[in-house]
Amino acid sequence: MSVERTLHHFPLDPASRQVRLALGEKRLPFVEMQVRYWEMPPEFTSLNPSGMPPVLVETKHQRNLVICETRAILEHIEETETEPPLLGRDPAERAEARRLLQWFDRKFDNEVNGFLLHEKMEKRLLRMGAPDLAALRQGREALRMHLGYIESLLQTRDWLAGRRMSLADFAAAAHLSVIDYFGDVPWKDFQAAKTWYMKLKSRPCFRPILADRWPGLAPAAHYDDLDF
Amino acid sequence: MSVERTLHHFPLDPASRQVRLALGEKRLPFVEMQVRYWEMPPEFTSLNPSGMPPVLVETKHQRNLVICETRAILEHIEETETEPPLLGRDPAERAEARRLLQWFDRKFDNEVNGFLLHEKMEKRLLRMGAPDLAALRQGREALRMHLGYIESLLQTRDWLAGRRMSLADFAAAAHLSVIDYFGDVPWKDFQAAKTWYMKLKSRPCFRPILADRWPGLAPAAHYDDLDF
Repeated sequence: MSVERTLHHFPLDPASRQVRLALGEKRLPFVEMQVRYWEMPPEFTSLNPSGMPPVLVETKHQRNLVICETRAILEHIEETETEPPLLGRDPAERAEARRLLQWFDRKFDNEVNGFLLHEKMEKRLLRMGAPDLAALRQGREALRMHLGYIESLLQTRDWLAGRRMSLADFAAAAHLSVIDYFGDVPWKDFQAAKTWYMKLKSRPCFRPILADRWPGLAPAAHYDDLDF
Repeated sequence: MSVERTLHHFPLDPASRQVRLALGEKRLPFVEMQVRYWEMPPEFTSLNPSGMPPVLVETKHQRNLVICETRAILEHIEETETEPPLLGRDPAERAEARRLLQWFDRKFDNEVNGFLLHEKMEKRLLRMGAPDLAALRQGREALRMHLGYIESLLQTRDWLAGRRMSLADFAAAAHLSVIDYFGDVPWKDFQAAKTWYMKLKSRPCFRPILADRWPGLAPAAHYDDLDF
């Protein structure tokens, strides 16, 4: 009973990247549809009324199951394609992975993306003018705090949520990889975080992420370098 | 093998209320600890580094399991206390309930709470001065859009995510109940939403929510009236 999958996503969207990494790690092939979500295309908003990527469409026996929003997609994949497990097997591991998902999707998103990505990416996509330097500085300061938090976790753990790689690592790496596309991650000051990111970056699931390019937005020189 | 539960929460926090409703609906008793999270009490931030309620602590055989953040708690309760199911039983129901959880926790939170609750509640808790009238107006306009969206769902459904009550209803009702505490929900213009809210409001799990009071913040006269 084979399932065909189509992922509607935007290549530089951290939320979309989490789903691409999880699908890749579970070796689930999918057709990709890139969506310029900020233009609110009706064929996309009819799939997800919030207008936000990612949206996964699973087709089985000619019936479509439309799954909108990162967390819904990640929990669904975890429930239906159980190997390898990406949320951990016991309640404590799962609680810790989900706590960190929320950390990156709310706190990191508000404090870092809301400034850095807004200024460097959204303003260019929306032709809103030049970046505001004070906002960039605020985003970069918050980013250093978050990298410090990642390092504090890695002092006692192999992966962010514990002994095993999980969706928490993919969430953090998805966010950082977009910031890294714009060359704004101060890796040299955070060696433990850099080592952790190198491990993720060299996994097969990360290859499509490193191949992403968007017209008019060139990546930093080291972006796809595994030995950066 | 009995589990003892302690919920750290703030009575007027929509995220905390979702968890209280889910625990109540599943008839899982818990000890409540109210937290003034905006004061960042160290005994609370040591439980959840993000500093945000709710946090659920489950104690079994003298071991504590600390579960931080709403989604992590709701998914955990759903996995460990399966009756009654609050996410639906098939993948399509679960995807729809989770899509709406995200809708209320990101879109409603950004567009309504970020203005209305910030001006009416957070500013008073933080002694930040008088509400900004333009921000209040913006929040109220967004609220009308969201009530319209709720009504559009209820045109073809008994509950927000489909035929069965789910966490999506609790998420929406938790958010609206806090706005309603401050008397800002224009129920008379949204009769279908009002009927749906009355059904939820009269459930036993809602009683503690209606009994909430916070010093210095009096609720609207109709707040705990089941026939408002």
